[in-house]
Amino acid sequence: MEQGASEAQIEAVIEHLNAHGFDVHRSSGVNQTVLGAIGVKPDFDTRIISVIDGVADVHRVTESYKFASRSWKKEDTLIDINGVTVGGNEVIVIAGPCSVESEEQMEASAAHVAAHGATFLRGGAFKPRTSPYSFQGLGEEGLRYLRAAADNHNLSVITEVMDLSKIDLIHQYTDVFQVGARNMQNFDLLKELGRSDKPVFLKRGASATIEEWLMAAEYVMSQGNPHVMLCERGIRTFETYTRNTLDLSAVPVVKKKSHLPIFADPSHGTGIRGKVIPMARAAVAAGADGLMVETHPDPASAKSDGPQALFFDQFVELMQQIRVIAQAIGRTVRDPQPA
Amino acid sequence: MEQGASEAQIEAVIEHLNAHGFDVHRSSGVNQTVLGAIGVKPDFDTRIISVIDGVADVHRVTESYKFASRSWKKEDTLIDINGVTVGGNEVIVIAGPCSVESEEQMEASAAHVAAHGATFLRGGAFKPRTSPYSFQGLGEEGLRYLRAAADNHNLSVITEVMDLSKIDLIHQYTDVFQVGARNMQNFDLLKELGRSDKPVFLKRGASATIEEWLMAAEYVMSQGNPHVMLCERGIRTFETYTRNTLDLSAVPVVKKKSHLPIFADPSHGTGIRGKVIPMARAAVAAGADGLMVETHPDPASAKSDGPQALFFDQFVELMQQIRVIAQAIGRTVRDPQPA
Amino acid sequence: MEQGASEAQIEAVIEHLNAHGFDVHRSSGVNQTVLGAIGVKPDFDTRIISVIDGVADVHRVTESYKFASRSWKKEDTLIDINGVTVGGNEVIVIAGPCSVESEEQMEASAAHVAAHGATFLRGGAFKPRTSPYSFQGLGEEGLRYLRAAADNHNLSVITEVMDLSKIDLIHQYTDVFQVGARNMQNFDLLKELGRSDKPVFLKRGASATIEEWLMAAEYVMSQGNPHVMLCERGIRTFETYTRNTLDLSAVPVVKKKSHLPIFADPSHGTGIRGKVIPMARAAVAAGADGLMVETHPDPASAKSDGPQALFFDQFVELMQQIRVIAQAIGRTVRDPQPA
Amino acid sequence: MEQGASEAQIEAVIEHLNAHGFDVHRSSGVNQTVLGAIGVKPDFDTRIISVIDGVADVHRVTESYKFASRSWKKEDTLIDINGVTVGGNEVIVIAGPCSVESEEQMEASAAHVAAHGATFLRGGAFKPRTSPYSFQGLGEEGLRYLRAAADNHNLSVITEVMDLSKIDLIHQYTDVFQVGARNMQNFDLLKELGRSDKPVFLKRGASATIEEWLMAAEYVMSQGNPHVMLCERGIRTFETYTRNTLDLSAVPVVKKKSHLPIFADPSHGTGIRGKVIPMARAAVAAGADGLMVETHPDPASAKSDGPQALFFDQFVELMQQIRVIAQAIGRTVRDPQPA
Repeated sequence: MEQGASEAQIEAVIEHLNAHGFDVHRSSGVNQTVLGAIGVKPDFDTRIISVIDGVADVHRVTESYKFASRSWKKEDTLIDINGVTVGGNEVIVIAGPCSVESEEQMEASAAHVAAHGATFLRGGAFKPRTSPYSFQGLGEEGLRYLRAAADNHNLSVITEVMDLSKIDLIHQYTDVFQVGARNMQNFDLLKELGRSDKPVFLKRGASATIEEWLMAAEYVMSQGNPHVMLCERGIRTFETYTRNTLDLSAVPVVKKKSHLPIFADPSHGTGIRGKVIPMARAAVAAGADGLMVETHPDPASAKSDGPQALFFDQFVELMQQIRVIAQAIGRTVRDPQPA
Repeated sequence: MEQGASEAQIEAVIEHLNAHGFDVHRSSGVNQTVLGAIGVKPDFDTRIISVIDGVADVHRVTESYKFASRSWKKEDTLIDINGVTVGGNEVIVIAGPCSVESEEQMEASAAHVAAHGATFLRGGAFKPRTSPYSFQGLGEEGLRYLRAAADNHNLSVITEVMDLSKIDLIHQYTDVFQVGARNMQNFDLLKELGRSDKPVFLKRGASATIEEWLMAAEYVMSQGNPHVMLCERGIRTFETYTRNTLDLSAVPVVKKKSHLPIFADPSHGTGIRGKVIPMARAAVAAGADGLMVETHPDPASAKSDGPQALFFDQFVELMQQIRVIAQAIGRTVRDPQPA
Repeated sequence: MEQGASEAQIEAVIEHLNAHGFDVHRSSGVNQTVLGAIGVKPDFDTRIISVIDGVADVHRVTESYKFASRSWKKEDTLIDINGVTVGGNEVIVIAGPCSVESEEQMEASAAHVAAHGATFLRGGAFKPRTSPYSFQGLGEEGLRYLRAAADNHNLSVITEVMDLSKIDLIHQYTDVFQVGARNMQNFDLLKELGRSDKPVFLKRGASATIEEWLMAAEYVMSQGNPHVMLCERGIRTFETYTRNTLDLSAVPVVKKKSHLPIFADPSHGTGIRGKVIPMARAAVAAGADGLMVETHPDPASAKSDGPQALFFDQFVELMQQIRVIAQAIGRTVRDPQPA
Repeated sequence: MEQGASEAQIEAVIEHLNAHGFDVHRSSGVNQTVLGAIGVKPDFDTRIISVIDGVADVHRVTESYKFASRSWKKEDTLIDINGVTVGGNEVIVIAGPCSVESEEQMEASAAHVAAHGATFLRGGAFKPRTSPYSFQGLGEEGLRYLRAAADNHNLSVITEVMDLSKIDLIHQYTDVFQVGARNMQNFDLLKELGRSDKPVFLKRGASATIEEWLMAAEYVMSQGNPHVMLCERGIRTFETYTRNTLDLSAVPVVKKKSHLPIFADPSHGTGIRGKVIPMARAAVAAGADGLMVETHPDPASAKSDGPQALFFDQFVELMQQIRVIAQAIGRTVRDPQPA
């Protein structure tokens, strides 16, 4: 309560809290009275109290998420996908082009990333583009190329689902559903994926706080799907030299607040090829459980995000460098695989 | 090009630009060479050039949107909705509760806002909520209450569509489709609404630049629907005393860049009832074509966003105050209507 | 405390709080224990507690400023400067060029702004410039021109002090010390001005929260100078169409939190002349106690910030428009003054 | 120029540019005319052109800094300080407490950090504090303790200078002048340090773009002092779980734009002890030339920023971990030194 709040004001607040089902503890200091509302109501809008006369400020003490929280589940969540364990000691690499463009492009990408230690193949078949005049993806044809290329090289598939109406279709082709940054608060989509039997790879929205991100994970988990993989991909700030600001401090923060595996995407996080390798190293050094990176057989002719795609030889260099960084902190990155 | 870029580097860039279909003008200064790419390619990713060796920086000269632009259409867009002209001299008021909760609540709201000069009734039937444990809306039942209350009081209806799959249903009840801030870049939804015969009320995303917002409008317009109403509702900044920072400078900026009508939503823009009236006055003073405000017969018991809903007598005060502000700048706000 | 915090952890926190001089109230709920620390320590770093094992979160309940707070002083602070009352019913206008450039420029500016209702003349003699190659101000010569022009037209003077070492010099010429946005947390400067007998005009830093801004005011006030005028001048956000984002919601927020007068600077707040008049109207409509605006006899040849300076006839238009806006909310703006 | 700009408008712009000393190249496309202004004017305010009628947009092609730029000096700047080379292959560690509090504290800190491979001792004698009620530093007495402790353990000294008037005093005790984030645009201070014979350690302002930061370095360098060390220490964003967002992508960006050495400060960058080690590893992995970290013999009793100070054994762990990370990328961190 504000300094000098009247007894009537204090009692009005207590009454409100009681009416919402809270027990109230009252501490009267020399200058100020503090009221503690006891009760578990994750959906309570604290502004209901903050607008009452005489209230100085309201703070939520309990977290607004439950299943996503480290206090609910102490041990790290491990997710087994086709024999690869996500969230364990191995740093997982998801790689491939931004968009699926052709059968040949996907086959070349899959062969290359598998040979150098990636275990997941990425590629978008339905593309969210800022401009209506940009390439919008191959659709189901793209999903077929993606699945076939992955199967040929013993990789798992991850691809983005942008809309409720596409879940069933994409389920036929993918191992993991990716939810893009722009959809992080598409709650209908999250709830529906929460009823799926496949893991969800949830990118952080460009302007989402870590708390909102964990609440988005809660949407999925509250429907029964415990397998959420988080991915930091850059937040929007005032800086313009980079496309986004990759917030690597999110890695140790999420590790403390949650038991879910946390990835980083240095390709979207920086938007420029030349920054991807240093930021990938930094992400692994910060403790990320995996990386999502874009690579393309011919970045100059890519139909989307070519400037942030690594050349194939740069991808080899990236894998070599993060392998030594991982070792330095007692983790592993898969060795190159003979064809 | 960078200072000291080699002739080979310069030629490589020219070749790239030619390959993408641009003519190139070359200006060689004492210290630096500047290349001008001539051609209209709104979907060209300028980073394709910026990552080439020797390139210092790349700037887009043409706007990345067309139909939304003031240079494409000089005169203000006027939209007639049931006899009310949006975008003209009258400052339009859209009012009502955040969520549709009951028939009585909607009837009371409609009667009150119509009596004091609003011409549109708002109310959400499908609610996007940050927490999965919060009230999610009444669904179609809510749409019926909303439509009936509006019809009883000669108001038009505006309500949010959150997903492609709901467009047809909502089309039966609404006059204007609202696209929420979180969906501003839900491109599938925008394209589908671009094929509708009803206007789209497009809220600015909390971290969207004005340029991205106009490109979202372009998604709708490029499909043939010219009737987009823009609405500033606060952007995410570092400030925490307000829920969002209502960016009123967006009003004159949009007026210069675009011919589309621009609204402001001081309820979401501030998140606290006590700031709504001053910011509503400010929005009208800045030149907004309309306001969207939340009011509720009993804010303390509202199922969502009660703390930012005006009490009915505050709504009367708001209408009185913006009426004199509008007059001061030569515009009008509808007079109170006898029942 | 975290859910599942051990008794030993809880006691360790209580011990820490006691050691820092706090009494502790303990509330044990079903899931969680909440500790309330009772005591007034505005300088206590709450992170000291938040890093202890088992602590979930720490919130400050008391405000971190005192003299600047509305709870310490209920009634609005009025400041009399040469017979003009700042913070009262009259909306005060401070106008003039960005930099003092010549005697003629200042005389023309003073004559014009006085004739149309301004009561303060502004102009910088020592200029903070982002680039070392830009005009840095006329120094003391500039102060003389500024004072003389103001005296000729019965205006008060406000000018920026950038460094401790210039306080005595500037004191000889000014009526109000301006502290620029970049110096908002130059604490040595604030403390020294806190010992002055002249009011301080404190601009909000481009990335300062409202709380930090009020704490900067507290620096001045804690040394004995109660006369602080606050000025919102735009915050840094991701938006690039405007130079800064003028945060007008700061006006009603500051009015609630503090008793100090609050101004707005639409010239720096937008950075572009064409946005100044609408944002000036909006600031007055939002309840600002005054405006600081830039105007120049020949903006095209101004040595700094010409693009945001109003032409003289635009300044007349601005004064006319805010006069009607002020009237609309029951306040006044000084009438034009015959020479 | 805007589409449809008239010939008169185009000519008016050309005239303006000529009047400011630019040659003008004109390219007329089908839809739009582009004007290129040829000339080197780092201090030209591009808004002067952008406000002219018919102008769509203005972009600066030349960088606004010179001496700080990689295009002016290709090879990395190496700075020799008491036999230690900053900016070379060795990753430099600057360590010590936030504030100098006593002779014993400094002696213990110096002994510890020197023994484990740091080469610089830090410690503040004049402290900028957000609240006027917080500890403000020991002043010259603090400088004496800092210098003596460093000398006893063969360390160099770095300490902050907050005001012009303290430069001479601090010069007697320090090897490197630190400029804090809040002073990054204190231009008088920067210019004066530009005339010093000692290096300047320039922290990035919490809301400064990388370009503004390099222009602040330019202020120092333009006065003749080439020895600037840059330090990323976190930027202000909307995220609240961390005190600041450590922008590690600034490391590769600065490496490309400039030849100056770049450090990172994970202590201020995160504000919480538990995040310091992972972010220190990440900074080294990203390619930083050095780290500034806070450590204290007894963080719980530190007079400032204790919660972000490492315990002594955590400092040992940090040094061990970054040593292996540095090796992994072909760099070194000094070995532990026997006493």
